[in-house]
Amino acid sequence: MMKIALVAAAVAAGLPIVVTTAFAGVNAPALPADFRSWTVVRSQVVSDPDHAMYGFHQVYANKPALRALRSRTRSATFSDGAAFVVSIYEPVQSAGTTTPGAKRRDVVRVKDRRAVATGGWRFAAYDPAGKPIAIDAAACYACHAGAKDTDTVFSRFID
Amino acid sequence: MMKIALVAAAVAAGLPIVVTTAFAGVNAPALPADFRSWTVVRSQVVSDPDHAMYGFHQVYANKPALRALRSRTRSATFSDGAAFVVSIYEPVQSAGTTTPGAKRRDVVRVKDRRAVATGGWRFAAYDPAGKPIAIDAAACYACHAGAKDTDTVFSRFID
Repeated sequence: MMKIALVAAAVAAGLPIVVTTAFAGVNAPALPADFRSWTVVRSQVVSDPDHAMYGFHQVYANKPALRALRSRTRSATFSDGAAFVVSIYEPVQSAGTTTPGAKRRDVVRVKDRRAVATGGWRFAAYDPAGKPIAIDAAACYACHAGAKDTDTVFSRFID
Repeated sequence: MMKIALVAAAVAAGLPIVVTTAFAGVNAPALPADFRSWTVVRSQVVSDPDHAMYGFHQVYANKPALRALRSRTRSATFSDGAAFVVSIYEPVQSAGTTTPGAKRRDVVRVKDRRAVATGGWRFAAYDPAGKPIAIDAAACYACHAGAKDTDTVFSRFID
């Protein structure tokens, strides 16, 4: 809020504004550098090319997220910092198999109780080069809000 | 060979034979207790119910296997003890998505240069309760042998 107030004051004063990465991304979690070594919770294939989440999904959970998932309580709540990354690949069909082809993007969600407008989660997406993709976190939340019993998380840990 | 000779001698002598688990499983690697926390290398869906590997696959690699996979050399060779587990689930199609349903089995392959008849790998399969399933390791190898450039491993590490 203070930063927004400062920017507003700068605009009012006609000052040049440098929007830093830190400011622009205040609500967008970074792509965790090590997620590829996190535990894969599940995978799924969304086959409809018109679906917002079209693609072959690989869902990774960090340790705090995994702990909550594995507690197996229906009312699992996640501690701040619990995070998921969904790597989404082009589904490639060949000879009766579907495999993940080229990466489409990585989607991140991180628990942060301060993000009240989006259910206590921050969302972000990155292209295969690691560059942020503009997303509507409210739309992410609107869909996930249906999973109220699991803190709006769809994924379950599959043994 | 000595054990086989002893069993043959026992049969010839009409003695009762107790085939121990250790003997029956001499070439069958155990299901590693911790594989669920290994790194997932890739996933794929084999859609044909008549295919021997029908199902939604999750492929796990232990650290030695991962090191070889990530070396990205075409002639990657795996050190003894390098291991993969493929968890195979029933593919469940619903509303345009394919997800892993009930587990069908876990398949294991462990590098062991002494297993020359099967390309230096030992194979085993386990049902969802962890009970060994009879498999023909020669058939596993016959299919994998095509992947000569990668020590008969089909899976590649996907970033």
